[in-house]
Amino acid sequence: MLGRLNHVALAVPDLAAASAHYRDALGARVSEPQPLPEHGVTVAFVDVGNTKIELLEPLGDNSTILPFLQKNPSGGMHHVCYEVDDIAAARDHLKAQGARVLGDGEPRIGAHGKPVLFLHPKDFFGTLVELEQV
Amino acid sequence: MLGRLNHVALAVPDLAAASAHYRDALGARVSEPQPLPEHGVTVAFVDVGNTKIELLEPLGDNSTILPFLQKNPSGGMHHVCYEVDDIAAARDHLKAQGARVLGDGEPRIGAHGKPVLFLHPKDFFGTLVELEQV
Repeated sequence: MLGRLNHVALAVPDLAAASAHYRDALGARVSEPQPLPEHGVTVAFVDVGNTKIELLEPLGDNSTILPFLQKNPSGGMHHVCYEVDDIAAARDHLKAQGARVLGDGEPRIGAHGKPVLFLHPKDFFGTLVELEQV
Repeated sequence: MLGRLNHVALAVPDLAAASAHYRDALGARVSEPQPLPEHGVTVAFVDVGNTKIELLEPLGDNSTILPFLQKNPSGGMHHVCYEVDDIAAARDHLKAQGARVLGDGEPRIGAHGKPVLFLHPKDFFGTLVELEQV
């Protein structure tokens, strides 16, 4: 069921500063910032060849990233996103295993225009897991 | 300079339980546990095709994972590891940019038998970054 690692998401308090640091200190290719108001984030992607690092900055007053940054003011590792072929089948399998899907339990359209869902970190040893149908 | 994402490391309090959960709930291929006493960890790798998820359990009383799990008893995202071609050149470049190398500043031999170093999370927006020469 589990496919490739689509991305690792890192929350940062200042996306412009983080993008510049990844470019300058690590010599990485970083995309332009992309505001996603419906997700409450502005994102930029660091291209590391085999996968992507998603830098996340809060956007708006209700961003789900804000409580994370209040707890981790410098930023930190926020979630991992795995690809699946069939997100409804994956959800049903996971729920049968006792995993909890965040929100209303239904996939929604994610930052890449594809169906995604998030699994409760308590069911994955403290790691927030996103699944994305590809 | 920045190469592929070699792995994402997730600290877990119980490696056997985490390995079983990744196999059963996510249908993932997980390696057998590998004790690395010189690093204070037992590791298992989840194969996700394009990269690896490294599950880390503390080994011994001086494991660097113990303080992390005291702060995050359920476990959590611990570090990301990027590949570089020349770790000494990468270190020199990063130090010139003001980044701090943990420990004595010299690469040591990591879990894969290759030179690694860790960069201070304060210099990478709260994320602990490992570099591995490949």
